[in-house]
Amino acid sequence: MIRVGVAGAAGYLGGELLRLLIGHPGTEVAHAVSTRFPGRRVDSVHPNLRAQTDLLFSAPDELGACDVLLTATPHKATMSLLPHLRDRAKTVIDLSGDFRDPDPAVYERYYGVPHTAPELLGAFVPGVPELFRAELAEADLISVPGCMAAAAILALRPLTGLIGPDVQIDARTGSSGSGALAGDANLHAERSGALRVFAPVRHRHEAEVARLTGLNARMTATGVEAVRGVQVVCHATGTASADERAVRRAYRESYAGEPFVRIVAHRAGTHRLPDPKLLSGSNYCDVGFAVDGDRITAIAALDNLVKGGAGAAVQCLNIRTGQPETLGLGFPGLHPV
Amino acid sequence: MIRVGVAGAAGYLGGELLRLLIGHPGTEVAHAVSTRFPGRRVDSVHPNLRAQTDLLFSAPDELGACDVLLTATPHKATMSLLPHLRDRAKTVIDLSGDFRDPDPAVYERYYGVPHTAPELLGAFVPGVPELFRAELAEADLISVPGCMAAAAILALRPLTGLIGPDVQIDARTGSSGSGALAGDANLHAERSGALRVFAPVRHRHEAEVARLTGLNARMTATGVEAVRGVQVVCHATGTASADERAVRRAYRESYAGEPFVRIVAHRAGTHRLPDPKLLSGSNYCDVGFAVDGDRITAIAALDNLVKGGAGAAVQCLNIRTGQPETLGLGFPGLHPV
Amino acid sequence: MIRVGVAGAAGYLGGELLRLLIGHPGTEVAHAVSTRFPGRRVDSVHPNLRAQTDLLFSAPDELGACDVLLTATPHKATMSLLPHLRDRAKTVIDLSGDFRDPDPAVYERYYGVPHTAPELLGAFVPGVPELFRAELAEADLISVPGCMAAAAILALRPLTGLIGPDVQIDARTGSSGSGALAGDANLHAERSGALRVFAPVRHRHEAEVARLTGLNARMTATGVEAVRGVQVVCHATGTASADERAVRRAYRESYAGEPFVRIVAHRAGTHRLPDPKLLSGSNYCDVGFAVDGDRITAIAALDNLVKGGAGAAVQCLNIRTGQPETLGLGFPGLHPV
Amino acid sequence: MIRVGVAGAAGYLGGELLRLLIGHPGTEVAHAVSTRFPGRRVDSVHPNLRAQTDLLFSAPDELGACDVLLTATPHKATMSLLPHLRDRAKTVIDLSGDFRDPDPAVYERYYGVPHTAPELLGAFVPGVPELFRAELAEADLISVPGCMAAAAILALRPLTGLIGPDVQIDARTGSSGSGALAGDANLHAERSGALRVFAPVRHRHEAEVARLTGLNARMTATGVEAVRGVQVVCHATGTASADERAVRRAYRESYAGEPFVRIVAHRAGTHRLPDPKLLSGSNYCDVGFAVDGDRITAIAALDNLVKGGAGAAVQCLNIRTGQPETLGLGFPGLHPV
Repeated sequence: MIRVGVAGAAGYLGGELLRLLIGHPGTEVAHAVSTRFPGRRVDSVHPNLRAQTDLLFSAPDELGACDVLLTATPHKATMSLLPHLRDRAKTVIDLSGDFRDPDPAVYERYYGVPHTAPELLGAFVPGVPELFRAELAEADLISVPGCMAAAAILALRPLTGLIGPDVQIDARTGSSGSGALAGDANLHAERSGALRVFAPVRHRHEAEVARLTGLNARMTATGVEAVRGVQVVCHATGTASADERAVRRAYRESYAGEPFVRIVAHRAGTHRLPDPKLLSGSNYCDVGFAVDGDRITAIAALDNLVKGGAGAAVQCLNIRTGQPETLGLGFPGLHPV
Repeated sequence: MIRVGVAGAAGYLGGELLRLLIGHPGTEVAHAVSTRFPGRRVDSVHPNLRAQTDLLFSAPDELGACDVLLTATPHKATMSLLPHLRDRAKTVIDLSGDFRDPDPAVYERYYGVPHTAPELLGAFVPGVPELFRAELAEADLISVPGCMAAAAILALRPLTGLIGPDVQIDARTGSSGSGALAGDANLHAERSGALRVFAPVRHRHEAEVARLTGLNARMTATGVEAVRGVQVVCHATGTASADERAVRRAYRESYAGEPFVRIVAHRAGTHRLPDPKLLSGSNYCDVGFAVDGDRITAIAALDNLVKGGAGAAVQCLNIRTGQPETLGLGFPGLHPV
Repeated sequence: MIRVGVAGAAGYLGGELLRLLIGHPGTEVAHAVSTRFPGRRVDSVHPNLRAQTDLLFSAPDELGACDVLLTATPHKATMSLLPHLRDRAKTVIDLSGDFRDPDPAVYERYYGVPHTAPELLGAFVPGVPELFRAELAEADLISVPGCMAAAAILALRPLTGLIGPDVQIDARTGSSGSGALAGDANLHAERSGALRVFAPVRHRHEAEVARLTGLNARMTATGVEAVRGVQVVCHATGTASADERAVRRAYRESYAGEPFVRIVAHRAGTHRLPDPKLLSGSNYCDVGFAVDGDRITAIAALDNLVKGGAGAAVQCLNIRTGQPETLGLGFPGLHPV
Repeated sequence: MIRVGVAGAAGYLGGELLRLLIGHPGTEVAHAVSTRFPGRRVDSVHPNLRAQTDLLFSAPDELGACDVLLTATPHKATMSLLPHLRDRAKTVIDLSGDFRDPDPAVYERYYGVPHTAPELLGAFVPGVPELFRAELAEADLISVPGCMAAAAILALRPLTGLIGPDVQIDARTGSSGSGALAGDANLHAERSGALRVFAPVRHRHEAEVARLTGLNARMTATGVEAVRGVQVVCHATGTASADERAVRRAYRESYAGEPFVRIVAHRAGTHRLPDPKLLSGSNYCDVGFAVDGDRITAIAALDNLVKGGAGAAVQCLNIRTGQPETLGLGFPGLHPV
């Protein structure tokens, strides 16, 4: 039994980690740390866990030793916190934005503040099993990419050599991505039914995509009417050889045997391209595409809290701890929903 | 031109008052008072008013004399505030819950605190034109009923003599009813798609219904997935003579000539009974019913911010100031939407 | 391995049966029958099953022998169909409305047509494990109750002796309850955001509630903005001894040890009473209540396609075939969603 | 009083034309033609028009002479229909896709069939008052652009000279755009919450944008969770001089004095960029932008049934008939909603 600790356990990513880890046959949740609710029942904050657990939140200083520590703490706070928690566990898997790029200058450019633990940056392996499975099996520090970055990386990576360097990514996200803290912008009456272009240019996840795909990626992001779910629509220019057959072959070769990537690119049907509506609770990332002359549109969808966060983290944990990679991640999603 | 002031102008009811009064050919908004945003443009808070007005919010102490003052300030705060504002206008129309019942004991029972201006309570005329049109034409103090109460009163009042005294009201409401202040309960990710029984028994609007219908009204309230809209489904027991024909006749007689009540009770069709989905922005209250043996179900729907608040207030203002009752209230609602 | 067949497999209940049975460690889906799509891949209709199965739909006459047959075929059609399919399996579990009441007169009253297989009616055991666990362990014919009936039965049954005979049930349902066939009434633009009182009196599920609770149950039903989910709010009059403590004790005693009923009746908190929003994909029925003097409000919520249909059927199958009752039904639901 | 006829009056665009024209002080609806519902009350199909009109639908052969005929009939059917109706009115305003491009080859490329009335194509003036006001004042044949094209044209046209020729348009639309006929794809349970990329490449509106802006426009289209509303996010490359100040100046100069275009491009705030959520029922098109180095993102939002259809048509009618351009189009939209 792998003993795990979760920091930031009262947030939405924290709750999703708890759901997956409590239902996981190979892990035991030893600590669920929350600065806001120490001593309270976990299911008072995450009501879907009623009858699943009697766990209480612990205060940060109660966090004891565990095999794997998962940090789902806020951006900017995590870089101060993680160095102090580093020794509590052999392996740390971070879900925040603070340890994703080895270059502190990139961090400062996109997050607006200097990085306070730059010495750790180079040690993290990206939590993308499809690209770094071997490295993850031995990694002690893992950084899970941002939800929109994860989708875009999986959509674009197979196209290397088939597209030009410039890619425009149109990302759409549900409201859970902005977290569990209430504010004017995520008040239901304001956010419901919105099509809110909250990042018309330069969404910070574009740096992650650029690094892991080698493309000149630009990302625009829009909040849509949904709680969960991310979709990216990536606009690229195909090279001369990039006809539909070549593109399909590239996706098939990239993802043959991948347990959590499905190619969804049918010629007809209501559900012929990836849609996050089908993926709530599931660890799948669906990827698809369309080709028209030299235009290539690559599309990916995932649940931002699962394959875009907690599920990816558990998949990495499984790899790192030598368990079957899909363990605890079997929920396929619902239809209709 | 009637000069009006709006207190609580930055809230959702306040914004709706501004929309209606700015578009009203017979009124001029002299003051839009907000304690939170004095000096800011009104359209920075109510973006639907862009290009409609250059008005700025004023601070409470800047409120000068006007013909009609509309107070859309919070429950419990209004009873302290209104006595100080009383002399700024000949007529005050209050949209809060603080002056709806002449009996301060009823207030204390439902609001949990003693009333601080009990001497004023008896002077208010209820802002229900369908019941108090003559009194409203001369009233200096008007209290608009709660949104769910307004719907239930219009659904039930025609049934006097046709039903027994006990009525169970099942009320449903969109999220705008809880106002523009963000909190954990109205965070989009929590509130979206909810069926939240926030008042399983004894919703405070039941007192208003009881008083204005003479029935023993009990109200349960549920928040549903919507921003605007209220619907009440009222369960009553019919007397021996209350067959469908008699019930229909009662509604027709009650509402013949009423400009803002429509009877919607068809035998077939998708839209055969009142649904607030059709009423966003409109001042209509749709009422309908079904009869099965001695069971009578009375249904009403309205937009909580219009006929359940700001629209009713403007209708009262029109009556009080001798203008055509429907002036500025012509928007019929959209379909589909 | 239990070999199962599913008739009506292309519908929404059929798809949910397939999801649960394909993910179930003790069952093998031998046949997925569809009259509309024979020969097509199951995942072309139920896209959430991509990468879960390569199963194809079979035509009705291809249905071979199996251990358990589950019929999720339409009301009125099933009573003609089931007698012909009866011999294909030792046990038949029907999810339609056609075999729920032993009295054919009740069927005719609520469904408007005479029953064509009245001789079978008395042989069915209701698919409510909480009430009929022992009988279900030996039943060869099982009839799963309607989704709203199931919720109301679980909400009300513990109150026997604590409430008077008359109960008004206010039921709310998502759009998946009306099935996978497109029509004017469930067109997205019409149905989205609706509060549609489609049964103001006498919803047919009231007969099921009456029979299994002994109450004089009346049911009103409203379509709300949701795809999945049912909630019932039941209004009853308490007897003299029915204070909050007595009511809570009754629920606790009724459901102690029940794996899929949770009591949700907290004094505070956003999620203090049952809400189907939390239950999509889960087999839980959450029940709760509030007491105010002699008013008792009992509330239940469930996923109409799971505990209100396919999940209840699988729970019955588990009981009938001697497997652990919770097998294949472990998904707890998501939050937020 | 201008006598108008509406063909296709039972569809969603037809209903919106009726709402606007019935509420318009200068027009009288003489005929509301429907092939499906002749003889039925208009408000039985468009329930928001209850108490607004007693009009009945007429059969196509009952269409008599009128001053202006508005055709909101389906694509592909209209090109056969319109030549026969041409003589019923001095001015015909077509809302279908059949007469938008003077080149029949463009029609065939995007609609897949040859045009059957190519001789008429050159005679239509595009129904875009912001670009063709003078021509519209004298036009006898007017073709209103597609909803997504209208938004993109207004977003991009001011950028002439400031951007390179290649533009990628990411368009999002509510479900009302696919019309009032039910089908598998717009069933509520399937369409609700969807992010459906129904045109990953080459949406047909791109041809209209290309023609009226001179740009090499490519359009991808996604159905989002909404009934009304269109938003376009246009990705362009700025020229050397295209800094934020220059871009803002270009928009201001283009739209100074335009009654129905608002520039919404604030530095902060929840509503800082165009969002169709605010525009339901309104004839505004909000346009905004962001600049980051050589990346320019231009954004526009409108109600597809109003400024993207019926409202634009009425605005053209006002111009053509010499009435104030804004007559009957004063509804500003709601907030919150």
